[in-house]
Amino acid sequence: MEPPDRRGAAVTASATSPRDLAHPAREEIRLEAVLHALSDPMRLRVVRELAAADGEVACSGIELPVTKSTTTHHFRVLRESGVIRQTYRGTAKMNALREDALGALFPGLLDAVLAAADAQTARLGAP
Amino acid sequence: MEPPDRRGAAVTASATSPRDLAHPAREEIRLEAVLHALSDPMRLRVVRELAAADGEVACSGIELPVTKSTTTHHFRVLRESGVIRQTYRGTAKMNALREDALGALFPGLLDAVLAAADAQTARLGAP
Repeated sequence: MEPPDRRGAAVTASATSPRDLAHPAREEIRLEAVLHALSDPMRLRVVRELAAADGEVACSGIELPVTKSTTTHHFRVLRESGVIRQTYRGTAKMNALREDALGALFPGLLDAVLAAADAQTARLGAP
Repeated sequence: MEPPDRRGAAVTASATSPRDLAHPAREEIRLEAVLHALSDPMRLRVVRELAAADGEVACSGIELPVTKSTTTHHFRVLRESGVIRQTYRGTAKMNALREDALGALFPGLLDAVLAAADAQTARLGAP
């Protein structure tokens, strides 16, 4: 696990039931936290898969070559930074990029990161 | 100090004298390392000042509200990730953004991050 970091994005959204996951409101999302979330290869891979899916994807639909607890950690960092929204649907935890929020706060940023990831994969092979 | 991280950008450029600082070659620069370098508020501040200066700036010309050793650490992370080039000129260590390398590898990324930082500052006040 990573230590708590100082990059912002306080997570204050009230959780009204144990199944409500805390998300930063749009105005609480911080650039530094978003960049930190995107700076890990596994988290960047999740973001690319969600962008390609263009909709909600279950956690079980994204396979990472790390342990389940590390996977859960990565999803949590993405959620708490404001990059993804996680919602329970029955027993599945569904994930989607917060493209509207990120696009409103930081126009072009997510697209530039996704394009850069594609360019790197094209240059170096598998991500 | 931060722990060594796994985000790439091996620094293999040979140092031919003690005053030559190691930089990754362009093809060694990794997106994850660049995003990590940009994810710290102090390092983002340095990058914004260098972008605004549009040329070389001495370390002494960039004041950060942290200790000298922390400042040195931040400049090193920026250099080793490929975001900046550091060059000794006499007794001064000069810094410049590697805009050509970053623009060639990741078109639009640096501009998107700088615009996002400007937008956040406009929204929240001081960076």
